[in-house]
Amino acid sequence: MAGAEIERLIQLLARLPGLGPRSARRAALHLLNKRDALLQPLAQAMRDVADGVRRCSVCGNLDSHDPCHICSDTRRDPALLCVVESVADLWALERAGVFRGRYHVLGGTLSALDGRGPADLNVDTLLARVGGASPVREVIIATNATVEGQTTAHYITDRLAPAQISVTRLAHGVPVGGELDYLDDGTLGAALKARRPL
Amino acid sequence: MAGAEIERLIQLLARLPGLGPRSARRAALHLLNKRDALLQPLAQAMRDVADGVRRCSVCGNLDSHDPCHICSDTRRDPALLCVVESVADLWALERAGVFRGRYHVLGGTLSALDGRGPADLNVDTLLARVGGASPVREVIIATNATVEGQTTAHYITDRLAPAQISVTRLAHGVPVGGELDYLDDGTLGAALKARRPL
Repeated sequence: MAGAEIERLIQLLARLPGLGPRSARRAALHLLNKRDALLQPLAQAMRDVADGVRRCSVCGNLDSHDPCHICSDTRRDPALLCVVESVADLWALERAGVFRGRYHVLGGTLSALDGRGPADLNVDTLLARVGGASPVREVIIATNATVEGQTTAHYITDRLAPAQISVTRLAHGVPVGGELDYLDDGTLGAALKARRPL
Repeated sequence: MAGAEIERLIQLLARLPGLGPRSARRAALHLLNKRDALLQPLAQAMRDVADGVRRCSVCGNLDSHDPCHICSDTRRDPALLCVVESVADLWALERAGVFRGRYHVLGGTLSALDGRGPADLNVDTLLARVGGASPVREVIIATNATVEGQTTAHYITDRLAPAQISVTRLAHGVPVGGELDYLDDGTLGAALKARRPL
């Protein structure tokens, strides 16, 4: 009904989480009405992100620098690693501002149902970091409190056992079945403080 | 917390209708995880729209051709004009598939509160079309059933009076206070069929 270019834009916008076909149409019109103020800058921001943002080769975070700004921040404790499922969870912890160590992003969880095994996660790079030149004192496992997250936590604990370092997990302030990205800062902070051996 | 490029993308995404700061973050991560399948095509679609889509100089519709595909569709009755506030309303009528004439997009409504006067609307171009080479038999005023929409409808009726053509409005199947873009096709069709002199 609209031109082919607009229809294509609407179709692609509708694939964003949180936007359906109707809100995608509204978003497309909003973009067309704010060509200079929003459409052009947003297209440019997407290009910049597509061209400039890469996975950190150390921790798996997304950043325009490699190593990322967290891995290269000398004020952050390199002996304290927090293992998260996704970059969304890393962002959630950073928003809470309760953690001054570094991260390791697994890139998912083990899942027999979805056919994701250990090879699909960044576990080998985690073991390499723990056994590497810079000594790691403690690994905090901050996977989600879901079945897959807990299974993954146990698997990682087993793999880390030979390294003989402290392996902890977030305290059960995290609601069972909940996901990190939805928690308030207070709950995340409390859970981090009350962490205990796994 | 994330890199500057990602933060900027999140900020711009949050300005889309339907997305808040949290859903903008999720959308940004979704884009980063689907770089080739979504991020790149969406950036390209935005460029294509920014470069290729213009306002139709005849009716004010948005399209990659000027005149737009509706104005240049010879199967559509050029003697029957439907006046709408916005392109969103034009799209709503086209989705309903109940109108085979052509459109005229006002680009807003009169509003004393917001300081929008007749000069801010495409009224002169409407009068020029009505008094132009191609005879217009009827103008259907399909502004929203809001105070501003009705005020605008009366203003346009007054301006069209000297032309001595039929001026109609959508029937009061349109819920009072409602907006076209939210109506189901059946209601839009019934309202179009039961149109009556203003």
